[in-house]
Amino acid sequence: MNAHPMWVNGQPSEEGWPFDRALHFGDGLFETLIVRAGRIRFRALHQARLAEGCARLGIAIDHDRVWRDVDAAATTAGLVKLIVSRGIATARGYAPSGSELARHLIFSYPHSPQHETVGFKVVTLQALLGENPLLAGIKHLNRLEQVMARLQMSGLSADEGLMASSSGPLISGTMSNVFVLHKGHLMTPRIDRCGVAGVLRAITLREAARMEWTVTQADLPLSILDDCEGLFVTNVRWGIQPATVLNGRSLDQNRQIDVLRTRVESLVE
Amino acid sequence: MNAHPMWVNGQPSEEGWPFDRALHFGDGLFETLIVRAGRIRFRALHQARLAEGCARLGIAIDHDRVWRDVDAAATTAGLVKLIVSRGIATARGYAPSGSELARHLIFSYPHSPQHETVGFKVVTLQALLGENPLLAGIKHLNRLEQVMARLQMSGLSADEGLMASSSGPLISGTMSNVFVLHKGHLMTPRIDRCGVAGVLRAITLREAARMEWTVTQADLPLSILDDCEGLFVTNVRWGIQPATVLNGRSLDQNRQIDVLRTRVESLVE
Repeated sequence: MNAHPMWVNGQPSEEGWPFDRALHFGDGLFETLIVRAGRIRFRALHQARLAEGCARLGIAIDHDRVWRDVDAAATTAGLVKLIVSRGIATARGYAPSGSELARHLIFSYPHSPQHETVGFKVVTLQALLGENPLLAGIKHLNRLEQVMARLQMSGLSADEGLMASSSGPLISGTMSNVFVLHKGHLMTPRIDRCGVAGVLRAITLREAARMEWTVTQADLPLSILDDCEGLFVTNVRWGIQPATVLNGRSLDQNRQIDVLRTRVESLVE
Repeated sequence: MNAHPMWVNGQPSEEGWPFDRALHFGDGLFETLIVRAGRIRFRALHQARLAEGCARLGIAIDHDRVWRDVDAAATTAGLVKLIVSRGIATARGYAPSGSELARHLIFSYPHSPQHETVGFKVVTLQALLGENPLLAGIKHLNRLEQVMARLQMSGLSADEGLMASSSGPLISGTMSNVFVLHKGHLMTPRIDRCGVAGVLRAITLREAARMEWTVTQADLPLSILDDCEGLFVTNVRWGIQPATVLNGRSLDQNRQIDVLRTRVESLVE
């Protein structure tokens, strides 16, 4: 492929990057990893999700080597972003030829300042998530829906925006999973048609179960947001972040959610 | 962003490409352009679609300069692929900062051999298209659905695969639009929830109208494929390609479709 002439902003270019399938099609996966005491938190769950994504997309890569390189980066970072691309295209068109060489990109960032106060302003967005079971759950590189959602949030002074899928139900935040406390029941959306199987979502489900708190994974109508007693969003960077304001409505803080939050925050794994 | 350390396959890298938002999120657009006699065919329609895509995604770029560079590449190419990326990330996360500098990539390919015989084997695929009105119609870089669809086609010995959207209706081929002749009526799917507003789709609608042939844009159930009299797929590379075999069923060739095909093929614009 590189034998074909190409230009970037009018200047001739022959290098490999412009031919990478991650750039042409979003043909790859990523993980956002939090470092604590020099180690990746919840490393095993990130590994499992990446492996699942590679299996679904049919991307072969040396996972041991990838995670060795991640561990090396973690010794000096606060946050590590990992991208796995199917690699440079070896033929034109959508179909992989099978002879691509997958590659991994590791980005190191310093410790980002924690949100000093616990408690988010959360709003519901108009932007929708398309439903596609083949891509649901995995953290692939097709993220324009999230880009559009975050563009919609500019000027709203909200910390996170909630999104429904095209057929109606609540799915997730733009960069988080969501849990809703409604009539005493803790619920979280199914993520088998769209949405990401968040690592902190899995941790939250597991820790809630250990507290003997049943969490239902279900189709949740958006209208549940009108009369829920509590709501929190989760990702590995935020942990469990309870909403203090939801679509302009103040929410009382729930003691049991706070216990769960503290429990998850203190996990060492 | 480039100040942050990063590694590619374990090797330190400081260059710009790994930070491009097209690679991280598929945050950009593309056009596949056919050259005839040194000029881009249907250039005005490609320009309009790219401009619409940039407006929807909020990507600012000098369109005159982009198309001047495309024209320069066209003098020696048979097929030109144009990518417009929002550019290198200037902040972490999905939200554009607004200070990104969009860039355009132009790839030149030789004339690809035409399909020598007119007539495609077409199959219906299981892979679905997610519905998202914000992204419908434009030719953005989130193309994993097409990659997955083309992976499903390997081993099927079909020229093109048809896809439905998550709510059921027929939408398009993996890299083409689709028209169906059913009980004497020519119909093509709506593309306002997903699918691409193909340049050759627009040309086909226009030329059919000039032949006083009404084409209905509608919700078409997949079952229409079971008893349609004719079907063709369109893109600028294939032109109008009638299906000779649809899901294993032979289709008689329709004289009026052939007239339309020849008419579109002979257009000079």
